[in-house]
Amino acid sequence: MTHTFDIAVIGATGSVGETLMQLLDEREFPVANLHLIASDESAGRSLSFKNKSLRVSALESFDFARVRLAFFAAGAAVTLEYAEKARAAGCSIIDLAAALPAQQAPRVVPEVNPEVLARLSAPYQLSNPSAVSIALASVLVVLREQIRLQRVTVTACLAVTSRGRQGAAELARQTAELLNARPLEPRFFDRQIAFNLLAQVDTPDSDGHGVLERRVASELKELLDAPALKVSATCVQAPVFFGDSISLSVQAEEPVELATICAALSTAPGLEYVESDDYPTAVADAVGQDEVYIGRVRGGLDDPSELNLWIASDNVRKGAALNAVQLAELLIKHYL
Amino acid sequence: MTHTFDIAVIGATGSVGETLMQLLDEREFPVANLHLIASDESAGRSLSFKNKSLRVSALESFDFARVRLAFFAAGAAVTLEYAEKARAAGCSIIDLAAALPAQQAPRVVPEVNPEVLARLSAPYQLSNPSAVSIALASVLVVLREQIRLQRVTVTACLAVTSRGRQGAAELARQTAELLNARPLEPRFFDRQIAFNLLAQVDTPDSDGHGVLERRVASELKELLDAPALKVSATCVQAPVFFGDSISLSVQAEEPVELATICAALSTAPGLEYVESDDYPTAVADAVGQDEVYIGRVRGGLDDPSELNLWIASDNVRKGAALNAVQLAELLIKHYL
Repeated sequence: MTHTFDIAVIGATGSVGETLMQLLDEREFPVANLHLIASDESAGRSLSFKNKSLRVSALESFDFARVRLAFFAAGAAVTLEYAEKARAAGCSIIDLAAALPAQQAPRVVPEVNPEVLARLSAPYQLSNPSAVSIALASVLVVLREQIRLQRVTVTACLAVTSRGRQGAAELARQTAELLNARPLEPRFFDRQIAFNLLAQVDTPDSDGHGVLERRVASELKELLDAPALKVSATCVQAPVFFGDSISLSVQAEEPVELATICAALSTAPGLEYVESDDYPTAVADAVGQDEVYIGRVRGGLDDPSELNLWIASDNVRKGAALNAVQLAELLIKHYL
Repeated sequence: MTHTFDIAVIGATGSVGETLMQLLDEREFPVANLHLIASDESAGRSLSFKNKSLRVSALESFDFARVRLAFFAAGAAVTLEYAEKARAAGCSIIDLAAALPAQQAPRVVPEVNPEVLARLSAPYQLSNPSAVSIALASVLVVLREQIRLQRVTVTACLAVTSRGRQGAAELARQTAELLNARPLEPRFFDRQIAFNLLAQVDTPDSDGHGVLERRVASELKELLDAPALKVSATCVQAPVFFGDSISLSVQAEEPVELATICAALSTAPGLEYVESDDYPTAVADAVGQDEVYIGRVRGGLDDPSELNLWIASDNVRKGAALNAVQLAELLIKHYL
């Protein structure tokens, strides 16, 4: 008989929480009791899981001793407030907001750095990297086997769902207003996002770097255990509901053999390689899929040590919920 | 009394032709007689210029000896077919499609390489670079005064109007169908462009590089007279009607002094520098403006010789019609 686990989803009523539950079901995660937890406002609602209706409980009064593992999918503030309570109760956590310091809750992508778990002890505290870092690291870990990575230059065009349901609602509302020739009044984003690209996704620091841009740079180094890797990251907001699109340029220390690279990408687990007579897009390919899509793989025009790629990934699925569930699967298989 | 010129606009009924006429008017270009030329199908229509109604003539029967200067804004095939006829008639041309070889019709941006004109003789043949190259070169020519440029990595997100009126009509149609929950049937683009990013804007060659990507790389080297500059270019199609957005990462040969760079960018003609407490976007800032907008200017996270910027530019105006009119102004001021 398979061992089963009592688990909790904190932030069950959000879009990531919803995808988490869907994946726990789809992947037949060995759940004994599932506790759905949300803020006081959402408590009392009912959600369906495996054809059963489950009532959402309030976070404030939840006893973490009742579960072995909790997914924190309710934002950084909630993680910071409740992670210690969970730890004290012996509950391992997977923090989708990556609110805890990396030393305390390392960022892990199962395909990239699963060995990190062996250095920890129960109760485990693990963090999801950002969706952009997960997609990039899934590709770079394959490239690393073929070439010595010197520098990566990234422009990531983020879906509005990276800002949750409100981001999606605002893009829909603005688009409808513009198509109906009504005056546009930005509410959730600081200006027009419909039919426009916003040059930043959060508030830059005094050096001009955004929070996510710094995060991507440090997460890539942590995930790939490559402290000397040079990272240039630009994160922008695209008028796309689902799926991140990333333009990646890599400089290697030696000339790149394209055929070998493409062969490695096409057989790597977790990746879907698209041949050069086609190309992947976020909406038509990546969304709803577990795999990170890669296409437009080409060398440099002026530099044989350069490699350019296009990456499309489901920001809510592999970028958040799927990676968290895969981390939980690793934990229960080897450690819990 | 100012000297005036008889000129022709080939492709007068297209969106670039329309902007050309608007700019000739706004900038008080010394036009004597304006000949509006288009394909046989559009001939006979009337367009308004300076409150006068002008009839559109057919290209096939047009006598180029009647004008001193012709703007070719009807696509590469038309330029290739009629440029020699114009030259033989003593008519200088400005080719907005850049169909002629660079040796024959050099690519020129007035702020970047006006000295090229002195090496030519009448009748002049000049080409507009691509909109992406115009925007990039306008910025790089300023940076070049401050740092030695080694490598530029570009991700350009193009507006659908870079594909003309049909591109805009298709984005509008697809968006309306999706918002009305009707099934989507891509027609002009090869797949869904509404709420999506397409990883390429034309058909890549056997090495995976798109036509525009190769063009941007060679045009930047030509415009900046920098044959050793390394260029990585990725051009993608964004669900944006007007205005190109470009993420630019520059590697210099020496550490970058950010304050000096920002000071130079903020005083350069043709540029609009946006301070780091704000950022420019295509739709809200660049569209309808003559200037190329620059913002999010920041150094490297891991490399003091790196510089990152965001560029927004009106692809139809500075990216096409305005540059062509500025070239014509240069020609009539010094050469014609």
